[in-house]
Amino acid sequence: MRVSKFFLSTLKEAPSEAELISHRLMLRAGLIRRLGSGIYSLMPMGLRIARKVEAIVRDEMNRAGAIELLMPVVQPAELWQESGRWQAYGPELLRLKDRHDRDFVVQPTSEEVVTDIARNEIKSYRQLPVHFYQIQTKFRDERRPRFGVMRGREFVMKDGYSFHSSYADLEREYRNMYETYTRIFTRLGLKFRAVAADTGSIGGTGSHEFHVLADSGEDAIAFCPASDYAANVELAEAVAVPAARKAPVATMTMVATPGVRTIDDLCRLLNIPATQTVKTLVYRGTEGLVALLLRGDHMLNEIKAAKLPALQSPLQPASEDEVREVFGAGFGSLGPLNIKHPARVTVIADRSAATASDFACGANVDGQHYCNVNWARDLPVPAQVADIRNIVVGDPSADGKGTLDICRGIEVGHIFQLRTKYSSVLHCNFLDETGKQQPMEMGCYGIGITRIIAAAIEQNHDERGIIWPSAIAPFTLAIVPIGLGKSAAVREAAEKLYAEFTEAGIEVLFDDRDGRPGVMFADMELSGIPHRIVIGDRGLKQGQIEYQGRRDTSAQLISLESAVGEIKRVICAG
Amino acid sequence: MRVSKFFLSTLKEAPSEAELISHRLMLRAGLIRRLGSGIYSLMPMGLRIARKVEAIVRDEMNRAGAIELLMPVVQPAELWQESGRWQAYGPELLRLKDRHDRDFVVQPTSEEVVTDIARNEIKSYRQLPVHFYQIQTKFRDERRPRFGVMRGREFVMKDGYSFHSSYADLEREYRNMYETYTRIFTRLGLKFRAVAADTGSIGGTGSHEFHVLADSGEDAIAFCPASDYAANVELAEAVAVPAARKAPVATMTMVATPGVRTIDDLCRLLNIPATQTVKTLVYRGTEGLVALLLRGDHMLNEIKAAKLPALQSPLQPASEDEVREVFGAGFGSLGPLNIKHPARVTVIADRSAATASDFACGANVDGQHYCNVNWARDLPVPAQVADIRNIVVGDPSADGKGTLDICRGIEVGHIFQLRTKYSSVLHCNFLDETGKQQPMEMGCYGIGITRIIAAAIEQNHDERGIIWPSAIAPFTLAIVPIGLGKSAAVREAAEKLYAEFTEAGIEVLFDDRDGRPGVMFADMELSGIPHRIVIGDRGLKQGQIEYQGRRDTSAQLISLESAVGEIKRVICAG
Repeated sequence: MRVSKFFLSTLKEAPSEAELISHRLMLRAGLIRRLGSGIYSLMPMGLRIARKVEAIVRDEMNRAGAIELLMPVVQPAELWQESGRWQAYGPELLRLKDRHDRDFVVQPTSEEVVTDIARNEIKSYRQLPVHFYQIQTKFRDERRPRFGVMRGREFVMKDGYSFHSSYADLEREYRNMYETYTRIFTRLGLKFRAVAADTGSIGGTGSHEFHVLADSGEDAIAFCPASDYAANVELAEAVAVPAARKAPVATMTMVATPGVRTIDDLCRLLNIPATQTVKTLVYRGTEGLVALLLRGDHMLNEIKAAKLPALQSPLQPASEDEVREVFGAGFGSLGPLNIKHPARVTVIADRSAATASDFACGANVDGQHYCNVNWARDLPVPAQVADIRNIVVGDPSADGKGTLDICRGIEVGHIFQLRTKYSSVLHCNFLDETGKQQPMEMGCYGIGITRIIAAAIEQNHDERGIIWPSAIAPFTLAIVPIGLGKSAAVREAAEKLYAEFTEAGIEVLFDDRDGRPGVMFADMELSGIPHRIVIGDRGLKQGQIEYQGRRDTSAQLISLESAVGEIKRVICAG
Repeated sequence: MRVSKFFLSTLKEAPSEAELISHRLMLRAGLIRRLGSGIYSLMPMGLRIARKVEAIVRDEMNRAGAIELLMPVVQPAELWQESGRWQAYGPELLRLKDRHDRDFVVQPTSEEVVTDIARNEIKSYRQLPVHFYQIQTKFRDERRPRFGVMRGREFVMKDGYSFHSSYADLEREYRNMYETYTRIFTRLGLKFRAVAADTGSIGGTGSHEFHVLADSGEDAIAFCPASDYAANVELAEAVAVPAARKAPVATMTMVATPGVRTIDDLCRLLNIPATQTVKTLVYRGTEGLVALLLRGDHMLNEIKAAKLPALQSPLQPASEDEVREVFGAGFGSLGPLNIKHPARVTVIADRSAATASDFACGANVDGQHYCNVNWARDLPVPAQVADIRNIVVGDPSADGKGTLDICRGIEVGHIFQLRTKYSSVLHCNFLDETGKQQPMEMGCYGIGITRIIAAAIEQNHDERGIIWPSAIAPFTLAIVPIGLGKSAAVREAAEKLYAEFTEAGIEVLFDDRDGRPGVMFADMELSGIPHRIVIGDRGLKQGQIEYQGRRDTSAQLISLESAVGEIKRVICAG
């Protein structure tokens, strides 16, 4: 493609409202243009990238046995009323009326429509399983659209829906999709993690998110570099540290700790690490109060704690008056020993607190703490132990294969076991082997096509612009001739190379604008084209042209003669 | 593709509301499923065809220099208010409000958005011309959606918009698109005509429709089999028949014609052909009355007549009282001679009436006609001659290259010179060579992707189902094994041929359902797959399989050995 025949529309500066680097670069490189809040046109350069993403997604979905169809963007409300989502979905669902005043929605997803197709088309277990998918425009009326196409209102999404005659078969397809998504994001050239949407154990869960790793990601992810384990930080399972309780080494003593309110205060006063302390947090329980014990350096995970049946949900911190009445002391001096009314308190220890030894904790006397407390010796081993803390970097991975690290991610895919949520209410049934009507088991599987473009940029850019992974680069090679209008030699060499690379099946953007070299270089770098050659009179006199990879810090000279062969090798290797 | 891995969903009978053959066959072959009035899902088989159509359209648009982008489906009302279409467009425009109560539309086309892009991106004549196109979902809230995707509400359309610095350049692109569309419909394998949307002279007009020819088409088209000339019947130019007036051969006489009210009556009484008569139709003019003279066998074209400045528009037929007062006689006996108050009548003769000789016409005396009337001899040559009649089969083509025929067509494409209609109101300007602001000249070019599928079926079907043109067939070859489950030889041969044809790049639908032969044959024929082989034990014993083209009346035996080569030759030839 010649730049003169293409529509390259780069900007020196991005509009100031664009905060995120991908949003700025997508505007600057002319991939998108804003039409309204959260609504963007995909410009020619942006569409080329979207089509590459789509092609990889389609190829892998087809290979996995899914079948593509296309469901309407504008959908009658009746089906949404039948599923209950018409009532349950908030204002994010874009609703409208046609000329006859009938209600419709603009699809945010298509569970209802695909389930309607399945219930009309599929009667018998012999027709199952089926997996339908589409790549189609979606609309979600976000309250605060932002970050360009990262959180836009209109976007392109691949949404797939599978139907099964048994849960076992749904699980098989779920694993199939887990592997398919892994192949897709690998082929896209992105660093990513499949993140369990609950505790992180692969297989047993009904939902995984696929995150592209990038510092600007909205979500924090705990992952094990030595294995596939990854989970949302807030949901990642925290195991006991240390794994088992050590034997006591010192005698328990009570020490005066006047003015100590926090673990930091306590550590400073006693000159011990926070790992050597246990803190006590008190919440209202379903009966009386609940004392949650955590190692001093750990943070309570409220999501995990709120799931404990002993606690009120959402969590209700006890007031200092309530605490003083039951424990005999105020905040800052609480602990599991010497509670004034122990019958009115349920004690739940985090796994790591339950394996602590020789630890310090409050003495339930204002301004007093115990040192060198040991379970079993100084107080009974905790009757209730649970995972109630956030994981921290260095924690053992729950799969036993190493220690956890934390990174940030952008959700670009999601696979989910819907089970019979939709098939039950929409009466999407089949006749099983025994002739009995059963609701179909369903899975759903989404990939945000337009969001992937933004996520890829968040992960791959530098101060000069975008650096496309080769699989989704809009063009593979930029040819930049210097002095095209003046030098016949440059023109001839440039046209010849353009023809030869194109012939070799390489997608070339030929900058035939005859502009200033600095402007052309800046545009090609901003656009993120992975490979670039520069053709100038000076080099040509030596029979040479310049080659530079987008991530290279300097150019190298290669002979004009062998340029096509050599650069093809570099491109294929990259 | 194996049928067991695909989603084939054929019906014996189409729902009774489907009147049109394409609608019936699209439902029966499982190409579409109805979601709501005028809203259809494209099922896997239908989507395959749509993608083939899209690929050809995209390929030719790119080759013609147009650049693909993607504009939003949901568009803010502001731009539509600015262009005036928010007010002017009727209830076909689907309007909606977002969560913040702001107005939006679901795009029926994208003139406003693309013009907004152009005005923001293009500043100078140096950046022109540009032609942007998209292939995207559209919505038109038809009052009475019918005929399936032929006149649906949601549909897929290719819409292109070009921008130019001069009218001459717009005309160049218009011709480029005329040729591109001709290539597209030729490649699609459809019989079609480019129809001038006004008088039919190519080049001078600003609009052409592309029609797929089919008996069920909504539009009647006059065309010249010997040339490219084609026009809507109502707009086609009617030339003089005969081209010049013959010399008189008989003396004018007045004859009594009691009870004659129509040309038929007159011809029967006088035993002359209608071509030998001239009829007089009287309308109210802007001053007095207007007599329109037509040859007796011709029909008035009201669209053409209404454009004449002498007549009131819309046409107002004169009452018999008005006529009698001015002409001296009532309906049935009117003519251009012997008018009672000739100063109160403007006479306009159709071109063919003006070249008639020795004709009969009313004598403006009740129950009397003249015979053998001749212009110049019996009355002055008509001062006003105009094209005011419908063309008929056998009329000379206006391009002088043969005679006209009439057929019916389905509009699948439209090219249009918008000129500055949108650029003026939306202030889409550029700086010309002299540094002056000018509105851009614009063209627009549409192709109905989903409608093409229906039109192709209207043109290509038989009592057994669809017959796809090879370029858009969902699969090229059907392999139908008989007794797959029982015969190892059949299975082996079928699998081998499936592998070999697939390897050869031919898209095969392998019917591995092991069903009854009649059911499998019927499904493959209904689905319109152009080529079919049948593999059975009996044939295999002779080393033979059966081949049948979809339009063939019987199968032929070919040797298993040479099957792949021979059938590849047939496919490539077809």
